Amino acid sequence: MFNIALFGVGRIGRIHGQNIHDHTQTNVYSVIDPYIEGREELSEKYDAKIQTTEEAMADPNVHAVCICSATDTHVNLIELAAQHGKAIFCEKPIDLDLTKVRDCLKIVEKNKSILFIGFNRRYDAHFNELKARLNDKAIGQIESLIITSRDPAAPPAEYAKTSGGMYRDMTIHDFDMVRYLMNAEPTSIKAYGSCMIDPEIGKAGDIDTSVIVLTFESGAIATINNSRRSGYGYDQRIEVHGSNGMLSAGNITENSVKQFGNQGAVEANPEYFFLQRYAGAYKNEWNHFVEVLGGAESLSPGIDGERALALADAALASLTTNKTVTL
Amino acid sequence: MFNIALFGVGRIGRIHGQNIHDHTQTNVYSVIDPYIEGREELSEKYDAKIQTTEEAMADPNVHAVCICSATDTHVNLIELAAQHGKAIFCEKPIDLDLTKVRDCLKIVEKNKSILFIGFNRRYDAHFNELKARLNDKAIGQIESLIITSRDPAAPPAEYAKTSGGMYRDMTIHDFDMVRYLMNAEPTSIKAYGSCMIDPEIGKAGDIDTSVIVLTFESGAIATINNSRRSGYGYDQRIEVHGSNGMLSAGNITENSVKQFGNQGAVEANPEYFFLQRYAGAYKNEWNHFVEVLGGAESLSPGIDGERALALADAALASLTTNKTVTL
Amino acid sequence: MFNIALFGVGRIGRIHGQNIHDHTQTNVYSVIDPYIEGREELSEKYDAKIQTTEEAMADPNVHAVCICSATDTHVNLIELAAQHGKAIFCEKPIDLDLTKVRDCLKIVEKNKSILFIGFNRRYDAHFNELKARLNDKAIGQIESLIITSRDPAAPPAEYAKTSGGMYRDMTIHDFDMVRYLMNAEPTSIKAYGSCMIDPEIGKAGDIDTSVIVLTFESGAIATINNSRRSGYGYDQRIEVHGSNGMLSAGNITENSVKQFGNQGAVEANPEYFFLQRYAGAYKNEWNHFVEVLGGAESLSPGIDGERALALADAALASLTTNKTVTL
Amino acid sequence: MFNIALFGVGRIGRIHGQNIHDHTQTNVYSVIDPYIEGREELSEKYDAKIQTTEEAMADPNVHAVCICSATDTHVNLIELAAQHGKAIFCEKPIDLDLTKVRDCLKIVEKNKSILFIGFNRRYDAHFNELKARLNDKAIGQIESLIITSRDPAAPPAEYAKTSGGMYRDMTIHDFDMVRYLMNAEPTSIKAYGSCMIDPEIGKAGDIDTSVIVLTFESGAIATINNSRRSGYGYDQRIEVHGSNGMLSAGNITENSVKQFGNQGAVEANPEYFFLQRYAGAYKNEWNHFVEVLGGAESLSPGIDGERALALADAALASLTTNKTVTL
Repeated sequence: MFNIALFGVGRIGRIHGQNIHDHTQTNVYSVIDPYIEGREELSEKYDAKIQTTEEAMADPNVHAVCICSATDTHVNLIELAAQHGKAIFCEKPIDLDLTKVRDCLKIVEKNKSILFIGFNRRYDAHFNELKARLNDKAIGQIESLIITSRDPAAPPAEYAKTSGGMYRDMTIHDFDMVRYLMNAEPTSIKAYGSCMIDPEIGKAGDIDTSVIVLTFESGAIATINNSRRSGYGYDQRIEVHGSNGMLSAGNITENSVKQFGNQGAVEANPEYFFLQRYAGAYKNEWNHFVEVLGGAESLSPGIDGERALALADAALASLTTNKTVTL
Repeated sequence: MFNIALFGVGRIGRIHGQNIHDHTQTNVYSVIDPYIEGREELSEKYDAKIQTTEEAMADPNVHAVCICSATDTHVNLIELAAQHGKAIFCEKPIDLDLTKVRDCLKIVEKNKSILFIGFNRRYDAHFNELKARLNDKAIGQIESLIITSRDPAAPPAEYAKTSGGMYRDMTIHDFDMVRYLMNAEPTSIKAYGSCMIDPEIGKAGDIDTSVIVLTFESGAIATINNSRRSGYGYDQRIEVHGSNGMLSAGNITENSVKQFGNQGAVEANPEYFFLQRYAGAYKNEWNHFVEVLGGAESLSPGIDGERALALADAALASLTTNKTVTL
Repeated sequence: MFNIALFGVGRIGRIHGQNIHDHTQTNVYSVIDPYIEGREELSEKYDAKIQTTEEAMADPNVHAVCICSATDTHVNLIELAAQHGKAIFCEKPIDLDLTKVRDCLKIVEKNKSILFIGFNRRYDAHFNELKARLNDKAIGQIESLIITSRDPAAPPAEYAKTSGGMYRDMTIHDFDMVRYLMNAEPTSIKAYGSCMIDPEIGKAGDIDTSVIVLTFESGAIATINNSRRSGYGYDQRIEVHGSNGMLSAGNITENSVKQFGNQGAVEANPEYFFLQRYAGAYKNEWNHFVEVLGGAESLSPGIDGERALALADAALASLTTNKTVTL
Repeated sequence: MFNIALFGVGRIGRIHGQNIHDHTQTNVYSVIDPYIEGREELSEKYDAKIQTTEEAMADPNVHAVCICSATDTHVNLIELAAQHGKAIFCEKPIDLDLTKVRDCLKIVEKNKSILFIGFNRRYDAHFNELKARLNDKAIGQIESLIITSRDPAAPPAEYAKTSGGMYRDMTIHDFDMVRYLMNAEPTSIKAYGSCMIDPEIGKAGDIDTSVIVLTFESGAIATINNSRRSGYGYDQRIEVHGSNGMLSAGNITENSVKQFGNQGAVEANPEYFFLQRYAGAYKNEWNHFVEVLGGAESLSPGIDGERALALADAALASLTTNKTVTL
């Protein structure tokens, strides 16, 4: 049984908390959060201690930390945990600053710590079926990849300011998927973006609508289609074209009910957002983390966090200069 | 070039008229209809003569007749055409009375005439793809067949009175498809029906909602699901289960557009009614009739008209007695 | 926290065991099973006691029993639990003998015990969305209901002998769904069946392919389409036609990947069997049982177990006599 | 009745020939083609004269010309027809040289001739349903447009040399659709392309795989995804995202049959190529041309041919320089 210290009891912390509880080899040993009501609720629910960061790090009973706190606390918590010999599960991103990320990864490496980045989509059963078939060359050599990733509704403009911008906050998942699915690093990137949804997001210096094109040495071309607001749920699709055909992974709808009448045939929308769409992925992710605790190789080590952020930075540079960035 | 005398310029006569015109080996030679405006319109459109029944039958230039007039005129026109050596295309049904149908077929046989029954669904490309795979044993031995056949909207109760009732008017197509797809004659039939849509239809002695179960010597079971009013277009589906899986033929939608928004994902309904859904089938049907004129074997000879009507009569007997009818 | 004694550690017992563990208000307090290895595995996994039936019934710390043992033990365990004041969750069926079921329910009633029948489909989110819309009259008055329920592969003929036959073992779920969705009791039933898949099943006196038609006072007609072997996974579909249109609930596929190539466009099959297809339903079911422990009204009380079995018996009588049975 | 002189009896000439024949207001008056067998076959089929270009142009009975001959003959035939007072239906492209196109359009304008460009997709019922909803603001303001356009199989490299290259030959349809659907002219274009399918195409100086991004003053972004070889038929999809949701138009499959078995659920591929996919569009196109002959405004006048070619040229310039081209 691995004892887990859970940092952060917000939306995503609660997801991981339940998965830690459900797994028969892990338990929520302690919760750490400045928000008193939230930490008390989870403490009671899972019969877990309430600790401070210092207590959790110093506690020899804590085997691993699960970092779900605010982004700007991640680097410090990772470094502390690495220095205290804890295994580390950290929600993406490691940080919004690439230099800080690289410094942090050096400390992780020096301490030979396990650092597992929560790129949830790598653990989605649907995408992994697609990935497995790519590996099996089911469609031959990859010629193009199209990732559709649209949030259901735009965040407040306030959020845009602190999130690091759309590319570092949202598209970072897509950059990771491009690398994961292509199994290669892109050689150039060009970003197109505009602010069409909320002018306040534009005033905050961010965009809400974007297309990003990445090219590869093989000649393959990847495209990411992003929007902060779809209006019909969380649009998460993948399409890969190869020398022998196409593989696609479509949306998962909220339910299988279809209603026919004089208005047409109405199906449910895609599942609303990441908490719904990737519920199974989060569970698989935690299962895999437990396997990593047991010695398995991680499917999403720290380096993937760094590389995805580097692509986000390059996309932003391309958007700002309106030029293709060579990688 | 085959000269065709077109009897009846109503909805279905116009469909066949255009197909006769489009086919490079046939032309609308003459139109026969008591309705003056209609016959004049088609006469002008296709540069065709206006004839009386007697003139058309006596005219040696007429190679074949296309009978699209009222049901109660069919038997007389078939017999006349057979006696005058014309090839005969006749819309279903031959007649609503099984004895008359049998007598009529005897005259056709005596004259060695071509009698081609317009069972349009036998010429639908989608259903024929399914039929071809059944023939190829793509799903092994047939275990069950489910035919869904629902009209978009109920006809006036007036119509129910003269149509011969739902089984002879509408389900007759489904009875034919059961025979066509099973490639065997059923051994028993049991009908369930009620009047749920329009009480006036009930008062006219008919039903509007029905399920019919037919059994076969092999143990296979066929079910027909009927309604006079779907409320969402013409619902025409087939599902066949066999020892190696299932074959289905779904509806054809009015268009391929799908709209996503906060109301869900809305697709177009199935094509509205037979004129739309079977437009291609009517064209194929006519093409096949021309092949039959050229010596090919008919895919829907007169005997199929007789057998489908016999099943309709048996279904009606079952409904009335609430007993299974052995065939 | 409710302590649950888990009877039976087979396939279905393990499903419920994990859900009991995952729920933050219940825990697997003890496991009871003659199979030593299995009970020890679960005991260790959930840190649960191993008890005999007598110990579990006598243990005042046990709040509720979860009965997942062999069918022929259900009645005895229910009666014991009722007499010992335990709340009861029992997998379907209560028993294969209607008289025994009725006697058992009397004892439950006398003891005012909670008896919750595991009709999993009543807790499926997809079917419940459909049910909610029926309640909201989204398609007006129900005119017909079609339930498709096909297992992926036939059980050994041995199983057919002890299972009570297809109607009591498999179709019982469909009978329950007919009652649940129609919100009315049928007035007649007629069953059609044959043995087309495995002759050994026929020799064992059972069928493997069936169509059942039930009629209702309103004129509505319900059809159940059953097979012991689909060849393409667990085929679980519902179609309801009403005065304003149709509601359907389709299959859930194993994944969202679609592969296009020269062989056509290949999608995943429906989820393989009930453990996969109804995983979420089992979870909802347990959540609801915990609500019932807390005072909520049960969505599947003992009477539903009795009524579904009565329909299975009537279907069998109809099949044997080839007559419609009036209910 | 309008008499049509049909230039070119190849694949596309035969499509138009049949539509001219089927339309009750037009007939194939004469065929013009250096290929003797082909012109004789069509002459016989439609009872049409065989003429030389000079005869057809000089023949006062010819009301309109339908130009389906080789691309390099188009400009000359258009100019002759304009000078002889014939209405002109011309298959795309007008020419591969933008200067020639512009000069040709001047002559058309000077003669006040009807010049109708065969941009078939503008007449597709599915895309027009989508277009109509865009016009109705069904999804509000357009934010992004994604056009997928993949041919089933690559042409011989020989063809690449004479076709003007992928952009002028194939993508020209997509450029036209971007303009048609966006109802605005793009302000910039950037093309990405590679040769991944057939190295011979690359040696001939062309590409076979491409992504093109176009931006608009409104901030909207359009993407075209192209391939010369899909491997699964003709992939023709449109996706438009707007402030209120998404509209998509999917592929039309070869048939509605779906086969379920242990290999998964297999549907038919998209219709194989343009002759199948746009058969209805070609018919609508001709119907509309006849309306234009009767005085209606053309939905695809000559200017659209010029503008689409200008975009193809700009895309090629972008591809060659690897820079964004401002329009």
